Amino acid sequence: MIFSSSLLENAVNEFAKLPGIGKKTALRLVLHLLKKDVSDVKGFSDVILKMREEIHFCSRCKNIADKELCNICADRSRKQEIICVVETIRDVIAIESTQQYNGLYHVLGGIISPLDGIGPDHLEIDSLLKRVNEEKTEELVFALSPNIQGDTTIYYLSKKLKDHRVKITTIARGIAFGGELEYADEMTLARSISNRMPIENYVGQNKW
Amino acid sequence: MIFSSSLLENAVNEFAKLPGIGKKTALRLVLHLLKKDVSDVKGFSDVILKMREEIHFCSRCKNIADKELCNICADRSRKQEIICVVETIRDVIAIESTQQYNGLYHVLGGIISPLDGIGPDHLEIDSLLKRVNEEKTEELVFALSPNIQGDTTIYYLSKKLKDHRVKITTIARGIAFGGELEYADEMTLARSISNRMPIENYVGQNKW
Repeated sequence: MIFSSSLLENAVNEFAKLPGIGKKTALRLVLHLLKKDVSDVKGFSDVILKMREEIHFCSRCKNIADKELCNICADRSRKQEIICVVETIRDVIAIESTQQYNGLYHVLGGIISPLDGIGPDHLEIDSLLKRVNEEKTEELVFALSPNIQGDTTIYYLSKKLKDHRVKITTIARGIAFGGELEYADEMTLARSISNRMPIENYVGQNKW
Repeated sequence: MIFSSSLLENAVNEFAKLPGIGKKTALRLVLHLLKKDVSDVKGFSDVILKMREEIHFCSRCKNIADKELCNICADRSRKQEIICVVETIRDVIAIESTQQYNGLYHVLGGIISPLDGIGPDHLEIDSLLKRVNEEKTEELVFALSPNIQGDTTIYYLSKKLKDHRVKITTIARGIAFGGELEYADEMTLARSISNRMPIENYVGQNKW
């Protein structure tokens, strides 16, 4: 792509560094911003920079936060005895958006994956064990990826916590709502049959 | 989508204002920027704002420019007698990227479209007529959208210029390279038969 202005070219190149944004999309975004008022574009650029400069991680659950504690940890009306263990901030947003969970979180920052060189020391596992020891945690709900790495992480943590009275659970695996039975993979289908549940649990589900 | 941080939420909302970027994509982009150094993000936000604040339009061809004249108008090695008339800046970038055209441009800013309320006065038509009068223009090449609005614009301009000695041409319409003949629409196929060209033109095409 050949540009008649280096200001335009630099802006397109910056946008094109973002994941999933090619040169053509970057040009479309930049031309869109060009049509906006200077104050709008200043708003855009200020908000992005402010976010990067001022955001930090919650000292308790490692979620993203404006202050020392994130909004979730600071909210005393949430159940303090349940911690949902997730991989990333994105998982917190996904679960929060269901509006069905009212406990706390702990963001590991990944899962144990020896092939990728990620061991327990690279993750927020010590801080989780410390929380379980110091807080009145009654239940850890694992909401990790349904794969070998996720299972390894759950296994590692449950061994570490075997002398604790804390209850360890994992979110249900099964056929997705709206999913077609015939297209489900055998593993999921087999597990969802062996983990079948009483129909009263299925129909009368309340908030936690 | 529910966020635990208003800094994050504001940044996602700003990205989601861009065309073709939904909330989920915006979140992905913001989390990507969060992983970058503050200096990188400052670079991103500065370049975007600088572009919007400092860019202006070439006083001659209305293309995007860093200075009073765009790089193309300022380049005296380009043929000054040919002006390619396009709708938008994007068309200039597309034609420049072919590296086959060595003349000047004129960006109309759109095409005549009465149904959308766009008349000749809304476009850079007077400035084009002024250029043709004042510069030693020998040829106007129209590279407009192949539709009724594009044809109307060409017709309007050629009427305005009927007393001029300037030659008026339009880029060739026909079957695209790599296009399958059987899938071409009838209009295109019919025109490409009636506008057939001698084979020596086809094989021995030089730069302008």
